[in-house]
Amino acid sequence: MLGRVNHIAIAVPILEEAAAIYRDTLGAKVSEPQSLPKHGVTVIFVELPNTKIELLEPLDDASPIAAFLERNPSGGIHHICYETPDILSAAEKLSAAGARILGDGKPKIGAHGKPVLFLHPKDFNGTLIELEEV
Amino acid sequence: MLGRVNHIAIAVPILEEAAAIYRDTLGAKVSEPQSLPKHGVTVIFVELPNTKIELLEPLDDASPIAAFLERNPSGGIHHICYETPDILSAAEKLSAAGARILGDGKPKIGAHGKPVLFLHPKDFNGTLIELEEV
Repeated sequence: MLGRVNHIAIAVPILEEAAAIYRDTLGAKVSEPQSLPKHGVTVIFVELPNTKIELLEPLDDASPIAAFLERNPSGGIHHICYETPDILSAAEKLSAAGARILGDGKPKIGAHGKPVLFLHPKDFNGTLIELEEV
Repeated sequence: MLGRVNHIAIAVPILEEAAAIYRDTLGAKVSEPQSLPKHGVTVIFVELPNTKIELLEPLDDASPIAAFLERNPSGGIHHICYETPDILSAAEKLSAAGARILGDGKPKIGAHGKPVLFLHPKDFNGTLIELEEV
């Protein structure tokens, strides 16, 4: 079920400052910011040879990232996104195994236009896992 | 300075249970456990097409992972390890930029026999970053 690590998402309080750290201090290639109002975030990608880091800043207090930053004011690793070839089959297998899918249990169209689902961190050692159909 | 994501480390309270989740529920390939007494951990790798997940269980209460699990009893993402071609040059550049290297500021031989250093999470948006010379 698990394919490539598509991205590692890091919530940050100030996107441009975080991007500058990755670009200037760590010498990585970073993208331009993209606003994703439907998902309540602005995103900058750090491009690495084998995967990418997704820096996430909340657009407003209703963003799911805002609550995370309240608990972790300087930011922190928010989730890991794995690619999966067939998300409906993955969702069925996960539900059958007793793993909780966040929301109504059905895949949604994610921030990158592809079907995604999120798994409950309590069922996966405190790690928020996103699956994306690729 | 930043190359491939070498691994994402996840601290877990019970290694065999965590490995079973990745193997049976998520359908990934997992390694046999390896004890690393010098580093205070037992490790199982989850092998993915483009990187790996390192599941870490503390060997005893003196392990640096034990303190993390006290704060996060069900586990959590502990650090991200990036490859870098020249760790001494990376350490110099990071120090010059004002980033704090944990310990005495010098690279050490890490859990996989290669020179590593860890960067202070407060300087990197709450993310513990390991650099490994590869």
